[in-house]
Amino acid sequence: MGRWEPNARGRLEQAALELFVERGFEQVTVTEIARRAGLTQRTFFRHFADKREVLFWGQGALQELLVSAVASAPHSAAPIDAVAAALEGAGAVLQQRREFARQRQAVIAADAGLQERELIKLASLASALADALRQRGVTDPAASLTAEAGIAVFKIAFERWVGETAPAGLPELIRESLAELRAVTAGR
Amino acid sequence: MGRWEPNARGRLEQAALELFVERGFEQVTVTEIARRAGLTQRTFFRHFADKREVLFWGQGALQELLVSAVASAPHSAAPIDAVAAALEGAGAVLQQRREFARQRQAVIAADAGLQERELIKLASLASALADALRQRGVTDPAASLTAEAGIAVFKIAFERWVGETAPAGLPELIRESLAELRAVTAGR
Repeated sequence: MGRWEPNARGRLEQAALELFVERGFEQVTVTEIARRAGLTQRTFFRHFADKREVLFWGQGALQELLVSAVASAPHSAAPIDAVAAALEGAGAVLQQRREFARQRQAVIAADAGLQERELIKLASLASALADALRQRGVTDPAASLTAEAGIAVFKIAFERWVGETAPAGLPELIRESLAELRAVTAGR
Repeated sequence: MGRWEPNARGRLEQAALELFVERGFEQVTVTEIARRAGLTQRTFFRHFADKREVLFWGQGALQELLVSAVASAPHSAAPIDAVAAALEGAGAVLQQRREFARQRQAVIAADAGLQERELIKLASLASALADALRQRGVTDPAASLTAEAGIAVFKIAFERWVGETAPAGLPELIRESLAELRAVTAGR
């Protein structure tokens, strides 16, 4: 008890997701998550601030990844290409954890409060991307439109990726969705 | 007291917005809104379920307007053109109340809970638009991408319209934003 537990974080995450899927996010307590993982509450709180953080802890890292990728895109890259490259890079990281992503999505889909939290997360990513584009000298409304378009592409690619049984890779789906967005906005 | 009050709804709305702008949404009570409007609490509750509804009562009507416009667009219209026509039509209705829209936006910008509510509203409009497109036989991901793109265009046009001192009409700004989205997704 209280000492360092090898892979405690991963065990807690897996236990939490299992319980959320089985019984719904609201019904599960931190005590139950810790018990299922064979760990203490105290260990849980060394890794996560609360049970919601099990589902959202990656947001800060994702945002940083996107912003720094936009910042470091070649100066000659068009804004949409800087954003697309950033999203594909993030997609390559995210796709290493498809089973986690699938379970997480199922938990969120079943809880209105978590769906709101997910919308806020996406809006905050869009706003960070727009700021990163402004830093590159992109003016508005192009900066906000490019960022919103990028997040729409990402959202839909992500939903396809978690929803299909044998999907293409997430970066490929992001590329396809952007191509599709180009086609639909062009009126094709 | 208790009898029908001419234009009570408009007076309550105006009183509520003034108070929200002066003191912040959270700090204002229904009693104060009614008092400022020179009406009773009972009259307030005949018009609005709660103080938040003063800011969001139009959502159902807006959604219906968008969905029926998409449904009644010519069969030959490309999905994005059906959505654009729907948004411009809604824009023409909304722009009749610019002062209300400006005050409402200021109130929402100052309150995190209201910003979340606004995001949920936009997500729900996107989802209704995507359904309306599916009804026209548009498949996914084109249906969801077109709907998300339309809502992004609408959001950014709306922000420009309430933010500028002498803006173009909202329908014109929606058209411009869509043209800009086409340009940015094409990498220009």
